[in-house]
Amino acid sequence: MTTLEHLIEALSLAKKAERKNIKGNPFVGAIVVDENGAIIGSGYHKKWGDKHAEVYAIEEALAHTPDLTKSSLYVTLEPCSHHGKTPPCTDLIIQSGIKKVFVGSLDPNPKVSGFELLKQKGLDIQLLELKEAVELNKVFFTNQKKQRPFVRLKIAATIAGKMVDYEADSKWITNTKSRAYVHSNIRTEVDAVLSTAKTVIEDKATLNIRIENIPSIELNAVIIDRTGSILDEQYATLPIFYQRTHTKVFIVTAPNAIAPTKPLPSNIEIIETPFNSNKEIDINILGKQLLEKGLYSILVEAGEIFSTFLLTKKWVDELDYFIGSKILLDNQAVAESAISKIIVLNQELPLTLLSAIPFDNDIYLHYAIK
Amino acid sequence: MTTLEHLIEALSLAKKAERKNIKGNPFVGAIVVDENGAIIGSGYHKKWGDKHAEVYAIEEALAHTPDLTKSSLYVTLEPCSHHGKTPPCTDLIIQSGIKKVFVGSLDPNPKVSGFELLKQKGLDIQLLELKEAVELNKVFFTNQKKQRPFVRLKIAATIAGKMVDYEADSKWITNTKSRAYVHSNIRTEVDAVLSTAKTVIEDKATLNIRIENIPSIELNAVIIDRTGSILDEQYATLPIFYQRTHTKVFIVTAPNAIAPTKPLPSNIEIIETPFNSNKEIDINILGKQLLEKGLYSILVEAGEIFSTFLLTKKWVDELDYFIGSKILLDNQAVAESAISKIIVLNQELPLTLLSAIPFDNDIYLHYAIK
Repeated sequence: MTTLEHLIEALSLAKKAERKNIKGNPFVGAIVVDENGAIIGSGYHKKWGDKHAEVYAIEEALAHTPDLTKSSLYVTLEPCSHHGKTPPCTDLIIQSGIKKVFVGSLDPNPKVSGFELLKQKGLDIQLLELKEAVELNKVFFTNQKKQRPFVRLKIAATIAGKMVDYEADSKWITNTKSRAYVHSNIRTEVDAVLSTAKTVIEDKATLNIRIENIPSIELNAVIIDRTGSILDEQYATLPIFYQRTHTKVFIVTAPNAIAPTKPLPSNIEIIETPFNSNKEIDINILGKQLLEKGLYSILVEAGEIFSTFLLTKKWVDELDYFIGSKILLDNQAVAESAISKIIVLNQELPLTLLSAIPFDNDIYLHYAIK
Repeated sequence: MTTLEHLIEALSLAKKAERKNIKGNPFVGAIVVDENGAIIGSGYHKKWGDKHAEVYAIEEALAHTPDLTKSSLYVTLEPCSHHGKTPPCTDLIIQSGIKKVFVGSLDPNPKVSGFELLKQKGLDIQLLELKEAVELNKVFFTNQKKQRPFVRLKIAATIAGKMVDYEADSKWITNTKSRAYVHSNIRTEVDAVLSTAKTVIEDKATLNIRIENIPSIELNAVIIDRTGSILDEQYATLPIFYQRTHTKVFIVTAPNAIAPTKPLPSNIEIIETPFNSNKEIDINILGKQLLEKGLYSILVEAGEIFSTFLLTKKWVDELDYFIGSKILLDNQAVAESAISKIIVLNQELPLTLLSAIPFDNDIYLHYAIK
């Protein structure tokens, strides 16, 4: 096996973890290979707070042979060099006697500098960046670099037309198969759906996961609601307030919008975030708050104004764009006036088309925004 | 070979014709099969004004054997029963002694009733409608049924955004590969590009066919220009008025908009069509006029207002929809107000997604409108 093949082997181990177990931690796999090319240790990070992949691999290798000086370590992510929930992996690597390390991706966390540290300690450490290793931890990397959740934005639009709100979307724009895909393949991938109080109230949105032939699955909801209006008595029976056992509705209000004495239904939590004089939320503060709540990736399903706000704030990492086979005609449109905006935005928001999937006459376009 | 296989054989003959030779005529292929299943005659319609496919097939079969009473005729389109540029094929079929006929599609031309006529004459005639036989003559069928050219509408749009005019399109919305496809695979398929004087003037449009590494190819242009303003002296050097050897610029004006004494450049022709008090063109009259000029299929590349007008008039048969990987943000949009329009239009303009082709980060969606 080549170096690349060993790293790909480590990557396949990394993928064994489940997001619900590792939570905000990265997917990591590691193997130890002896001088004959035999894999004598392997492991992956299984659970938040649990041993790192390198620890599993090195412990297994040491049980096999006490001398690892001629063995190599392959790890999909740069080893940690700081005391977190576990001691630094760099200490263990040095103690194990391993002299050669191959790394599949660098950790954007500034506290993690295992690569430089091991190099300084005289180890032969090489970076062989695997696109797939980076892709696998896109949520983790975004959390670290941008201090906010990984954000997917869902838009449903007519042809040559407009995006419309959640309700219109569900009912008029896309077909059953497209809507089923949102539930089975997009909502299942995130920790929460984020929307606005306006959309949730008007559309009587549930924001859970509904897949045919299986019971509905709970999902955290984040509702932007500056004044906390959704907590009014009249909205107590909204579908969003369904009986929850392990998820929450997070209501994001301006500070002191809700009296601290107000009795809250169970599984409702207020997040107080500053709004500016234009009633725009401080998105940087909200990003950190959502991470603290364990919401590492979110799907935004909101109206055009809020979605546009997030785009302009560069808060969108991926776009889930559904085009229904309907034409919305608007001969009031004056297209030319918008051209200057297009130029600017093209430079600011370069899009990569990841995939295009037709659902009968609908089409789903999945874009990454760099 | 089965009946279906014989018809598919005839269909493959039909496709040998070239649009530029048959002009407004249909693609038709025919074979004569004897009682042993041997093909003893075959042919296809090659050229406008020339013999029909059945004539070729039957003449060849008769040269092979004078007795066709036990032979069958397979023809992709219903045989003609009227005197056009050639005598009716039904006469020849009856005279040939053939008793069994299989037809792949019916002719929408009310003058053509060969199917009923042959049935009345006691022949065993069966319709085995082939989707592909109908598709092959979509231009011809549309010309016959709707008395207008087959119309493709090209739209280039941003994501969740707007369509923009030709110029903006070329420059900002779609990429080089998308634009190359318009020239090599769409403009080459039509007899003319139709636009408005406003778009042609503002965008300095040429509307010809430009394919890399080969010289530009001429293409007829139809310009909607109620007042004939594009004939003003100042526009004489517009790119649209390039040197033409076998194509024309058709300028569609209101009656008497241009003085009959005005000297016109060569290869410019005025089509006078009524406009109503809202300055909207009488599209039904224009349709017939374009057919008379030999424009059986056209591509519309115009602005949003004119494109919308054509859609509402149900004048669009196929939509060539390009989405550039750009987001046009517009937080002035009030999406809800448009929902009633969507409902209505969905019923009126049902779309079928024929294909989706990515060009790097652009995507081309090809729709049929029923």
